[in-house]
Amino acid sequence: MIQQANAQALSRLKSASPRLIDIQPAGKVLKDFDRHTLLHAGPPIAYSRMCEPMKEAVHAVLMYEGLADSREEAAELARSGAIRFLPCHERGVVGPMTGVTSYSMPLLVVRNETYGNLAFSTINEGAGDVIRFGACTPNTIRRLKWIEEVLAPVLRDAVQLLGGLDLSAIMSQALSMGDELHMRNIAASMVLLHRLADPLAQVCPPEQLHEIMQFLTTRNDQFFLNFAMAANKSAADAASGVEYSTLVTTIARNGVEVGIRVSGMPGRWFTAPAPLVEGLYFSGYSQEDANPDIGDSAIMEVGGFGGFAMAASPAIVRLIGIPDTDEAQAFTQLMRNITMGEHPSYTIPNQNFAGLPLGIDLMKVVETGIEPGLNTAIVSKQPGVGMIGAGLSRVPFEAFAKAIIAFDEMVQERLS
Amino acid sequence: MIQQANAQALSRLKSASPRLIDIQPAGKVLKDFDRHTLLHAGPPIAYSRMCEPMKEAVHAVLMYEGLADSREEAAELARSGAIRFLPCHERGVVGPMTGVTSYSMPLLVVRNETYGNLAFSTINEGAGDVIRFGACTPNTIRRLKWIEEVLAPVLRDAVQLLGGLDLSAIMSQALSMGDELHMRNIAASMVLLHRLADPLAQVCPPEQLHEIMQFLTTRNDQFFLNFAMAANKSAADAASGVEYSTLVTTIARNGVEVGIRVSGMPGRWFTAPAPLVEGLYFSGYSQEDANPDIGDSAIMEVGGFGGFAMAASPAIVRLIGIPDTDEAQAFTQLMRNITMGEHPSYTIPNQNFAGLPLGIDLMKVVETGIEPGLNTAIVSKQPGVGMIGAGLSRVPFEAFAKAIIAFDEMVQERLS
Repeated sequence: MIQQANAQALSRLKSASPRLIDIQPAGKVLKDFDRHTLLHAGPPIAYSRMCEPMKEAVHAVLMYEGLADSREEAAELARSGAIRFLPCHERGVVGPMTGVTSYSMPLLVVRNETYGNLAFSTINEGAGDVIRFGACTPNTIRRLKWIEEVLAPVLRDAVQLLGGLDLSAIMSQALSMGDELHMRNIAASMVLLHRLADPLAQVCPPEQLHEIMQFLTTRNDQFFLNFAMAANKSAADAASGVEYSTLVTTIARNGVEVGIRVSGMPGRWFTAPAPLVEGLYFSGYSQEDANPDIGDSAIMEVGGFGGFAMAASPAIVRLIGIPDTDEAQAFTQLMRNITMGEHPSYTIPNQNFAGLPLGIDLMKVVETGIEPGLNTAIVSKQPGVGMIGAGLSRVPFEAFAKAIIAFDEMVQERLS
Repeated sequence: MIQQANAQALSRLKSASPRLIDIQPAGKVLKDFDRHTLLHAGPPIAYSRMCEPMKEAVHAVLMYEGLADSREEAAELARSGAIRFLPCHERGVVGPMTGVTSYSMPLLVVRNETYGNLAFSTINEGAGDVIRFGACTPNTIRRLKWIEEVLAPVLRDAVQLLGGLDLSAIMSQALSMGDELHMRNIAASMVLLHRLADPLAQVCPPEQLHEIMQFLTTRNDQFFLNFAMAANKSAADAASGVEYSTLVTTIARNGVEVGIRVSGMPGRWFTAPAPLVEGLYFSGYSQEDANPDIGDSAIMEVGGFGGFAMAASPAIVRLIGIPDTDEAQAFTQLMRNITMGEHPSYTIPNQNFAGLPLGIDLMKVVETGIEPGLNTAIVSKQPGVGMIGAGLSRVPFEAFAKAIIAFDEMVQERLS
């Protein structure tokens, strides 16, 4: 019964066909969402329990939305209970790092053409004082406004001119160009630019083209990550809700806890404390400065990318502190022990085009004790400092232990 | 003595620093060159002995230059002796496939910053009726005019705005993205677009930007090849003329003969009949339709790329008909038997960042009998048909045998 359910869930994951169809404000496309609702990365968490970078992102966004005039006012508003905080994942959204998403923000609208479901992500803010790393400065808010007012309308027009954009084709191509599409999106971002350059030249007001091209090509190698995340979210959501399936459809971290969700128990979170990340720290920083693991970007590993696709990305080795490319190969092989199959079209060229390990199986994680590995950025626990390193994070076994107990209970209940 | 000479020549090859500094008409930058001189790929050849695709390219270019009004007039002029034909290589130029280069054509001007020498290549014509594959239609000539009048001035302004472009950085990055930079330049072309997008937005007249972006992003994945060829030519020329060195500084094919040149015998060509190429033919074509090997692009292998860098490019395997990626790895290793060393900064990520096999040694080729392998396009012997496949071509041993005899004679003469 479980085997059949997993075959169906895996097949849904495999056959997803994510297409960017539009760019629209969150307030226009999200259901049960308003100006006083903020989304955040990871499993549910109250404002008072949030880590500092997430709190600061909330403050910045409340100012961006015109609901507060200062950080102090924003903090007061957030504490007051007048703001509803929800996980991105519960509104079809995925947000990198702090993941804070609000009413006016333009969202990438991705449709899974196979199943018709939609998924969303914000537009990557690039480098500097960005909310995903918990910055809250006038620059932060200026950038968000610029994305809303200048970049998004032009990107939307370019995407419309193209009649949408097949994201799986870009992801597949980027894998053959050394991206694992979590911590390395440089090829994917270049492929995206390659697709958009001509449409942008056609739709962009000439006086804006310089600033837009500059934004897209300067310290913005992770620009495609949000596209890829929404693509994988659209695939994972289609695989959710298959009765008795033990497929893991969500891994997400809020900086305090890691949460997973499982296909056969839709909507339920199983959590554990978010770990500190093993990795390479930038000069002057160490694990003592690090915030625990944070962000919805683990949706990439749910789709077989990131840590699972380590073998496709020899250059990632140097970024996250793996000893050599043999170890990267071995890590992808390790992840094959906890997955249900291989992706049919996302392949690893230097493993003779074997498919990505796809479909994390709750049962296999529990049986083997192998914790899924996530490639991730490391953010300072002090807000405003930003990224201080990158590494490989392991999803704590505890979350899977809780999930398997709940799954057993559910099965026994239904069968009794 | 030879060992010392080779160490010096190899060091010159390693320390080259190719930078695109300008784009200028051939007539302005080439020495001893005029409107009645045409350059062609490979070793010297008279018009009457040229293969059909090269002849047709000559006809197209004579019309492009306004020296003939029809193909017949052009053929007559070419036969008349009024046109001087010279190898590209003898004027510091490298031309892909037919390589025909004339007075009005804008050339990429590459300076080897370490040694100050210049090298040149035309701007890649993209897909369609192109002279490099021996087309001679009104479209062929229109495209050449458009490159001269529209594209080149804008590219030149963009390059100037950037203060030049470090080509070795792009080549190094592209290797980490799965290019071998001979038959696969898709990553390099995207990196180039990424560098140029913002400058183009700044310098390009808005009404031309669409056609330029369209040209750069449509069926133009080999656009960077000409940049890479000029870069390697600037490195190889700097390594030429080291007394007693057996370093191979040129491999080039004119469609009838393959020619090599050796550092210690500068200016002398050693030739053999150009082979037919083993490879994958497009549907409907076979080796019977193929022209023998052609083009100056083997300068890529002289610099350690192409066939020598096969291991860096798993995706090339499917294009040229290698069985699998293990064979690609093995082929790069095979080429290490005939090279003097490794490139210090052009590395192969999935060989744990080992350097490209660099510096083909005439002596090692003769000792081992291993013929250098070139990744190459295959052109139809019928002009106008164009590319009909891709494969791996081996440089005939005969050319090396002739060179070693000449080298021995030279050494004995000098020592006696």
